[in-house]
Amino acid sequence: MDRSFVIKGNICLTPRVGELVILENGYLVCENGVCRSVFDEVPARYAGLEVIDCGNKLVLPGMVDLHIHAPQYAYRGTGMDYELLEWLERVAFPEESRYADAAYALRAYTQFADRLKASATTRAVIFGTVHAAATMILIGLHGKQRPGELCGQDQHGPERPAGADRGSRRRRRRGHPQVYQGEPAAGLPAHQAHRHASVRARLHRRADGGAGRDPQGYDLPVQSHLSENPDEVRLVAELAPEAAFCGDAYDRYGLFGRDGNTVMAHCIYSTPPEVERMKRNGVWVAHCPSSNMNVASGIAPIRRYMDEGLRIALGSDVAGGTMESMFRAVTDAIQVSKLYWRYLDSDARPLSFPEALYLATKGGGAFFGNVGSFEAGYAFDALVLDDSAEPTPRPLPVSSRLERAFYLGLDRGGIAMKFVDGERIV
Amino acid sequence: MDRSFVIKGNICLTPRVGELVILENGYLVCENGVCRSVFDEVPARYAGLEVIDCGNKLVLPGMVDLHIHAPQYAYRGTGMDYELLEWLERVAFPEESRYADAAYALRAYTQFADRLKASATTRAVIFGTVHAAATMILIGLHGKQRPGELCGQDQHGPERPAGADRGSRRRRRRGHPQVYQGEPAAGLPAHQAHRHASVRARLHRRADGGAGRDPQGYDLPVQSHLSENPDEVRLVAELAPEAAFCGDAYDRYGLFGRDGNTVMAHCIYSTPPEVERMKRNGVWVAHCPSSNMNVASGIAPIRRYMDEGLRIALGSDVAGGTMESMFRAVTDAIQVSKLYWRYLDSDARPLSFPEALYLATKGGGAFFGNVGSFEAGYAFDALVLDDSAEPTPRPLPVSSRLERAFYLGLDRGGIAMKFVDGERIV
Repeated sequence: MDRSFVIKGNICLTPRVGELVILENGYLVCENGVCRSVFDEVPARYAGLEVIDCGNKLVLPGMVDLHIHAPQYAYRGTGMDYELLEWLERVAFPEESRYADAAYALRAYTQFADRLKASATTRAVIFGTVHAAATMILIGLHGKQRPGELCGQDQHGPERPAGADRGSRRRRRRGHPQVYQGEPAAGLPAHQAHRHASVRARLHRRADGGAGRDPQGYDLPVQSHLSENPDEVRLVAELAPEAAFCGDAYDRYGLFGRDGNTVMAHCIYSTPPEVERMKRNGVWVAHCPSSNMNVASGIAPIRRYMDEGLRIALGSDVAGGTMESMFRAVTDAIQVSKLYWRYLDSDARPLSFPEALYLATKGGGAFFGNVGSFEAGYAFDALVLDDSAEPTPRPLPVSSRLERAFYLGLDRGGIAMKFVDGERIV
Repeated sequence: MDRSFVIKGNICLTPRVGELVILENGYLVCENGVCRSVFDEVPARYAGLEVIDCGNKLVLPGMVDLHIHAPQYAYRGTGMDYELLEWLERVAFPEESRYADAAYALRAYTQFADRLKASATTRAVIFGTVHAAATMILIGLHGKQRPGELCGQDQHGPERPAGADRGSRRRRRRGHPQVYQGEPAAGLPAHQAHRHASVRARLHRRADGGAGRDPQGYDLPVQSHLSENPDEVRLVAELAPEAAFCGDAYDRYGLFGRDGNTVMAHCIYSTPPEVERMKRNGVWVAHCPSSNMNVASGIAPIRRYMDEGLRIALGSDVAGGTMESMFRAVTDAIQVSKLYWRYLDSDARPLSFPEALYLATKGGGAFFGNVGSFEAGYAFDALVLDDSAEPTPRPLPVSSRLERAFYLGLDRGGIAMKFVDGERIV
């Protein structure tokens, strides 16, 4: 399919935090995989392009998932009666050990990749395991389907890459701090030109208990977990007594950002100095509300982070989160923000639907560059949603239909079309 | 279809709080719509019954929803950026006013009834509006489909029944306290013999600002809301200064139980005297975690209520809750209990999956009598779940598959069969 065309439909986007723009029966122009803005009528200069008429359907930017574990997909929705550290030990690590078997990895990752392809997610930052062969399979599967993602490899999971220092076994077994790194693989397709976009990563270096050489020297993106759980915060303090706070333990080894290429999931118990460092270093917060409830971690102070101007995205965090649905992540983020406001900080206004939608699209999309909006120059990552299977006794306004699609989880069964960089993949 | 048969499959039930019993490839006998227990082999005395082989599917008791608003179904999943009182004023009441139009009610309630029929819910306690014709339509629709429920009619919604006292308009407008009553309609089908089971209710009396005659004299079930939101608790105290607490405002007018026929939704801010009164009167708590997050109410202290021995059920509370899925209510109950434990009471152990499943089946089912289990003498309300569309790279144990079905919401799309009183309705 040519990557230049026009979409006609009910176009929804959040160009700024909290601002939901809807153009009913509008036109969205894609030229060579790049957005050329939204129009009431097709401008004369695009008159030659094919018009895909989506009728009464909803057209919105694709979802960006900045935190998901591919090797945990196999047991999604199970083992949820444990708290974080016990859950890692009893559920996550035993499963991740299976990825030493490449045949198992191929089977499992194929299922994961198929589901991610069918989901609302158009860009993702994905965790693998320590197993190089398995991770190359994961990269290959996603390369084929091009949802546009960054795969990293777990450096501190239950097993070590060959040659790893056996002395830090205990640290690995406890699961935190986990450091994930990757470097761009050779032969990136042309559509991955802009920084980080759709980078296929592979194992970069051996794990050494957190004391790795500075990956910034390689301009490598880093993904990990930060201040997720009080027990884990205490554990990090014990393991890294030289660090002033959890994030400092990463920063001392060059694993804490500098130019927006580090994603830290959770950040529930970040202290003011940690938040200050994140802000200074441009570290991304991947807010994973579903997971934070499931493994009883808590609620991240997202309103405060927004007010501080931190870089914030949402993550499904499968399988701490149970499903790959970013629609669910959006509504979970709103729900927990209401409980946070109610019980923890009455100054922290709950997230509105447009605000949470922003985080899942343009907010997180900024990690990949111009991604997550329909403004001119943005990658054409789009969803066309068919919500006609949801009956109503009277017509609902488009804004209500959009909100409903998220709360009812219509990303399951309702995605009529999905585009990444203008290429139709559903 | 004959209401005597045998189901073969992976049979799951929670005979006691927290105890999940699974019989793989077991047999479940239904005789005249009533369970005759679970067996490893079909006993000789049932050898003549048809065996329905469900293969590797999951067989579990139907879900019981003790709090759902039929007239709010039309706008489910929308308007979620409001807190309770504003939400009632701006979203709930304007919609409920539409049910003065019987044609609208027929259209809307048909959609609701169809969806409830397709859902995992086998018994429900359902709210209507003040409009008699609309409520009779609702009763009729459910009578036809027999999911087994109790319909009530809103006495203090945005509009009054004809002849109602205009003096209490302000109270009505503010929405609380809302009192809902009903009485059995004439000509109940035979399967509704036991108390409350599948009662079709109709409007009983005019509203009078809470000062109704004692409905206990009529042995009427009562459903309402209790201590849902701090502002609402303050409002009730202002409107009923003679009452010692919210529940006392009901109790003074005979609207607060006595023999287990009163359901009060939410109970988030119930004081110790209120809890004591609920315990004494046998008042049911309908815990609605999804709604409690959405309209920013808070988290009910369910572990404490369980320890106190209160009668507890779950409710979807559409459209405070966004969907009719009781699978979602189960997992939401678990999730919020973890946040409650984390932030509000470290002695309140989070709900386990088997505990929450109990609340949604045998726990709430007790409102209807012997409902919600597969023990001998229980109504044969059952679901057969097909989870084969969820891929896994290795076989999962049945207990994990069951948990996963709830967390992934496989009640949407996964219900292969559904029985109420032994009658197959899906």
